[in-house]
Amino acid sequence: MEPLTDPEGVLVANQAFYEAFERRDLDAMSDVWEHGDHVVCTHPGWPTLRGWAAVSGSWFSLFNNQQRLQFIITNERAHVFGDLAYVSCDENLLDAGMGATVASLNLFHRGAGGWRLVAHHGSPVAPS
Amino acid sequence: MEPLTDPEGVLVANQAFYEAFERRDLDAMSDVWEHGDHVVCTHPGWPTLRGWAAVSGSWFSLFNNQQRLQFIITNERAHVFGDLAYVSCDENLLDAGMGATVASLNLFHRGAGGWRLVAHHGSPVAPS
Repeated sequence: MEPLTDPEGVLVANQAFYEAFERRDLDAMSDVWEHGDHVVCTHPGWPTLRGWAAVSGSWFSLFNNQQRLQFIITNERAHVFGDLAYVSCDENLLDAGMGATVASLNLFHRGAGGWRLVAHHGSPVAPS
Repeated sequence: MEPLTDPEGVLVANQAFYEAFERRDLDAMSDVWEHGDHVVCTHPGWPTLRGWAAVSGSWFSLFNNQQRLQFIITNERAHVFGDLAYVSCDENLLDAGMGATVASLNLFHRGAGGWRLVAHHGSPVAPS
């Protein structure tokens, strides 16, 4: 079976994730995610964080300590299998000294509240 | 909705992936994956490869050029939502000079042939 490739709602959710990230908006970031032991998040170079407590703590830490990041998202592709979908994209960081690309894989689950993140995995792409 | 956490078949598929990887067995690696435009693969430090042609080519290249890798897989967690499941785990590389950990997120789709990979994303964990 090929997945559905009509990604309408999923891409809106993916965009909401990056908007919360750019705005360093903890409330919006919290709304973007499902809250449970099953969520996982791997920031570039970090070990994987498992469970909402660890994941939410990482966003708190990043938003308090890290410089503001701006992205241009490219190569965004969504594939929907029932109530779970994955989005692959490239995060092109614009900030000074950070002209880097992060390869990202985001998983969304569709529940009563719509599509919510259950996994985010970002990894640095080595300069070619 | 919480996902099912009975990951029986998914963990078997995850193990088959790492066995094919360790044995550098292209046929077994091909059997582990779905073949289609929707599959994605991000090797550590690489840009994301999209579609089976690019993904299969990367395994051919890795198996021909890279030293043999051996893993100990830890922190393996599977979560099943219908016919799509994700497995989060750490790949602890044993080889000399490679005492490194790769954080990995693997997605499996259940079709007629059982659970097959549709996405693999591995990223280097920076030494702490």
